[in-house]
Amino acid sequence: MIVESSPAEVRRIVRAARQRGLIVGCVPTMGALHQGHVSLIESARTDCDFVAVTLFVNPTQFGPNEDFSRYPRTLDADLEMCRTAGADLVFTPPVSSMYSESAQTTVRVTKLAEFLEGAHRPGHFDGVSTVVTKLFNITEPDRAYFGQKDFQQQLIIRQMVTDLNQPVEIVTCPIVREADGLAMSSRNRYLSSAERSHALQLSQALKLAENLAVDSALMPPEIAQAMKDHLNSAGGIDVQYAVIVDSATLQPLAERSDSAVALIAAKVGATRLIDNQILRFR
Amino acid sequence: MIVESSPAEVRRIVRAARQRGLIVGCVPTMGALHQGHVSLIESARTDCDFVAVTLFVNPTQFGPNEDFSRYPRTLDADLEMCRTAGADLVFTPPVSSMYSESAQTTVRVTKLAEFLEGAHRPGHFDGVSTVVTKLFNITEPDRAYFGQKDFQQQLIIRQMVTDLNQPVEIVTCPIVREADGLAMSSRNRYLSSAERSHALQLSQALKLAENLAVDSALMPPEIAQAMKDHLNSAGGIDVQYAVIVDSATLQPLAERSDSAVALIAAKVGATRLIDNQILRFR
Repeated sequence: MIVESSPAEVRRIVRAARQRGLIVGCVPTMGALHQGHVSLIESARTDCDFVAVTLFVNPTQFGPNEDFSRYPRTLDADLEMCRTAGADLVFTPPVSSMYSESAQTTVRVTKLAEFLEGAHRPGHFDGVSTVVTKLFNITEPDRAYFGQKDFQQQLIIRQMVTDLNQPVEIVTCPIVREADGLAMSSRNRYLSSAERSHALQLSQALKLAENLAVDSALMPPEIAQAMKDHLNSAGGIDVQYAVIVDSATLQPLAERSDSAVALIAAKVGATRLIDNQILRFR
Repeated sequence: MIVESSPAEVRRIVRAARQRGLIVGCVPTMGALHQGHVSLIESARTDCDFVAVTLFVNPTQFGPNEDFSRYPRTLDADLEMCRTAGADLVFTPPVSSMYSESAQTTVRVTKLAEFLEGAHRPGHFDGVSTVVTKLFNITEPDRAYFGQKDFQQQLIIRQMVTDLNQPVEIVTCPIVREADGLAMSSRNRYLSSAERSHALQLSQALKLAENLAVDSALMPPEIAQAMKDHLNSAGGIDVQYAVIVDSATLQPLAERSDSAVALIAAKVGATRLIDNQILRFR
């Protein structure tokens, strides 16, 4: 496994692989890897001949009051997980080689980025779409792998790829959960033991929504309300949104639909968590 | 020479060329080709093994009161000029295959796009940087060729390529002029015979600036004033700007500099023209 911090060198290495006819998969991450990331790398390993993982805590996707400076950096453990999962190349650029002082270009997706995470984290998705474009241009992958946990993010990246004709196929991989249901997240390590148990309510509220979709005749707004009631009654959780939306447009659903997803964002103590669940109505 | 309107097919053709080890040059144009465009294609022909020309009147770079609908479309003549200049592939996409109704992604360069053309044509450079990104992603060139006539545009595209790590080298080619000095432009065909002679004042004002830079001790603001005086005294010209700026930052120059360019934009009748001249101070 090659570990490389230079964008130019990474491009050269990946181009050499493609020249040999290899299919290239890219897994963009911010490091602090967990089993969710491992599942992305393993999917890439299964689908592709050459797997590049990027580890970069991207400053431009954090708001001024967010956790950029204290975001977990666990390089040695990350590299070990990449190696075990079968990565061929790990790209570890310093911030200075990704953003020059004169940088002034942004890739912006508008409509899909305006609500939910976009509303709660102004500028977040501009940072994401810009850095993902840069990482695609450096690693030039045939396929790139993202987690369903960041549901809105993968949708925005798909929109961007289509709109800008980026020559890459986006693959979305299922959420990986702890045994008790908590969705894996690099931010879970911020949680105290008490917060960790409060945080379980997110996946439990989604499970409730999933069951109500199958077992009841309730409409999406009623199910969303049931999620909110569940979360608010649990205590220790500050709900930012708990909604049921169309999984392509992210617009709130009034009627039962074949294309529905339940999305939750909530703060547990100082830690902001998100989770989601595709719904199958009876 | 292949003429192709499908983005997917163009990508396939260019990729096959690259697979054979050919260096790919791209010349993005809006058609209505003239000798300036021909010089770009010829430069690409000299530098590269496979030359792709794109002909696309991009709606998103025109303002609501600009000339999108009446912009000259001269496909047959364009194709003949491409053939003569040595193009291998001409990409002629319809608007519908470049922009879907759900498109919502913009590539935006900020600082360099805020003044001069950007101030007079709000949104223009967003349209340019977005469509050029799309054309780069479709044709995947090693090099792309732009005219110095659109001075600010080539600077913005260079900035975008650097900022987004786009894997393409930008080549800027000199302005091509008519025998009497008028810079070649697709919009020159809008000019009446009287307007055509008024329009000569642009290149003459630039020639004046070039001479004053070499032959006088005047400072850039004084030379810029001399250009304005020349243009205003000529009549028939509505000057939008006539400035001397740093050729990398586009900031106005107070002092004589090794990196200076004189830029003019003016309306001649209903036709908006631009021209420029690199200055060499004595």
